Amino acid sequence: MKIKPLGDRILVRVLQVEERTKGGIYIPQTAQEKTQQGVVEEVGDSQDIKVKVGQKIIYDKYAGTQIKIDDVDYLILKNDDVLAIVED
Amino acid sequence: MKIKPLGDRILVRVLQVEERTKGGIYIPQTAQEKTQQGVVEEVGDSQDIKVKVGQKIIYDKYAGTQIKIDDVDYLILKNDDVLAIVED
Amino acid sequence: MKIKPLGDRILVRVLQVEERTKGGIYIPQTAQEKTQQGVVEEVGDSQDIKVKVGQKIIYDKYAGTQIKIDDVDYLILKNDDVLAIVED
Amino acid sequence: MKIKPLGDRILVRVLQVEERTKGGIYIPQTAQEKTQQGVVEEVGDSQDIKVKVGQKIIYDKYAGTQIKIDDVDYLILKNDDVLAIVED
Amino acid sequence: MKIKPLGDRILVRVLQVEERTKGGIYIPQTAQEKTQQGVVEEVGDSQDIKVKVGQKIIYDKYAGTQIKIDDVDYLILKNDDVLAIVED
Amino acid sequence: MKIKPLGDRILVRVLQVEERTKGGIYIPQTAQEKTQQGVVEEVGDSQDIKVKVGQKIIYDKYAGTQIKIDDVDYLILKNDDVLAIVED
Amino acid sequence: MKIKPLGDRILVRVLQVEERTKGGIYIPQTAQEKTQQGVVEEVGDSQDIKVKVGQKIIYDKYAGTQIKIDDVDYLILKNDDVLAIVED
Repeated sequence: MKIKPLGDRILVRVLQVEERTKGGIYIPQTAQEKTQQGVVEEVGDSQDIKVKVGQKIIYDKYAGTQIKIDDVDYLILKNDDVLAIVED
Repeated sequence: MKIKPLGDRILVRVLQVEERTKGGIYIPQTAQEKTQQGVVEEVGDSQDIKVKVGQKIIYDKYAGTQIKIDDVDYLILKNDDVLAIVED
Repeated sequence: MKIKPLGDRILVRVLQVEERTKGGIYIPQTAQEKTQQGVVEEVGDSQDIKVKVGQKIIYDKYAGTQIKIDDVDYLILKNDDVLAIVED
Repeated sequence: MKIKPLGDRILVRVLQVEERTKGGIYIPQTAQEKTQQGVVEEVGDSQDIKVKVGQKIIYDKYAGTQIKIDDVDYLILKNDDVLAIVED
Repeated sequence: MKIKPLGDRILVRVLQVEERTKGGIYIPQTAQEKTQQGVVEEVGDSQDIKVKVGQKIIYDKYAGTQIKIDDVDYLILKNDDVLAIVED
Repeated sequence: MKIKPLGDRILVRVLQVEERTKGGIYIPQTAQEKTQQGVVEEVGDSQDIKVKVGQKIIYDKYAGTQIKIDDVDYLILKNDDVLAIVED
Repeated sequence: MKIKPLGDRILVRVLQVEERTKGGIYIPQTAQEKTQQGVVEEVGDSQDIKVKVGQKIIYDKYAGTQIKIDDVDYLILKNDDVLAIVED
């Protein structure tokens, strides 16, 4: 089974806290916090999408729609909610 | 009797919870939850519509207008409220 | 006397509950309900209007402006508030 | 003395209740009511204006700016606040 | 000293109540009232401006920015806040 | 050290009350007051900017971002927040 | 590891208070305060971006998304949230 995002949407696997803090990035756990990290799993067919499957990204915390597939957390985000790519 | 959606709208039969959890997709039942699944039954005539009759989709929970036909739940959604196609 | 809607507006005669439930369509009476049915009586001159006089339509409940003519309920709706056409 | 509306605005003489109910149109006096009737007295120079001086119109109740000239109620409306023309 | 409004703004001298009621125009003093009258003193250089220096206008009461020059009340209005020209 | 505003922004030195009332302009100190005066110190590179360094301007009171340089109050305003130029 | 902002976004290292007051710029610590200073570290690929890596900037305090890398505060800002460049 496969989730295929439409248009300028992407499917992102949410990285858990232990994964996120690897590499020295720490995202503050306060009410103001607005970021999380994930890995791009699927992308829609819009040419506006600048990220590729497999890339690690930072996205706006309040963006997107949560779904769970086989107990793993995913998000369907709009391309514009991706703030930056994390390159190791 | 037939419901023919106008423009960029589509008619979707709402999938019930038991149907939705088939295939391992679980959609959290919290206040933040924002997704549901349905099957496309009719589409308007707009060329922007990217889904076809019979496809299983994930849509934004707060989108659309509920109607009931012969005791079955349907939604009239705008094309843009469809987040992704679920391919088995 | 005649009401001639302007531009992309249409005049719709509101169908009462007993009429609406004919044919198996039931529209839930909850706070979330958002649909009603009516019959198109007059249309403006905009080319965007896709409905014709005499067609039965589903429209957004909160849309439009209510008027009463000879004790019959009518609505002046914008074309875009029409969700779907009901074909018998 | 003359009031000349600018652009897409029109000057409308407000019809009182006794005048409005002539011809069988009744507009409900509830909180939801949103219509009133008037007669077009002056129009701006915009080509978007589709009504003519002397026509009886239905307009959105909450639209426009009230003025009184020689104790008669008038409204300055935008063209788009006119819902329909009433033809006798 | 001179105030030169920018773009589509105009400088208007506010007419006091005694001046406004001359000629039979009365503007209601209720909470809903939304009009006042003034005289155009300066105009910006935008071609959208349709009023001329010296014309008496009706403007939206809540529009514009108040200033006082030598104890006289003025308003800096946007062109679009002018509803109509009053011709004597 | 120099502050260089970007795009359609300008840097304005805020005129204090004693300076503002020179020349007879008085700006009311009520809750409704919406104007203040300043002197343009730097301008961005946008061609939309119609004011020049050294000009005295009236701007919308709630506009812009306050900064202090060597104990002097400045504002970074958008070009569109400038209402008028004051010519002596 | 590197953060690469997307589109019209930039990565900014937040300057602490002791750094900010160097050079005589003081930014008021009140509720109205809206500015902070930072140094541009990375820029997206949009041609709208007018700042360069290494420049000191003033940005809108409420803009952007906070992240921490190796205990240093950064912000991902949109290009339009940059108010001015500070030149020493």
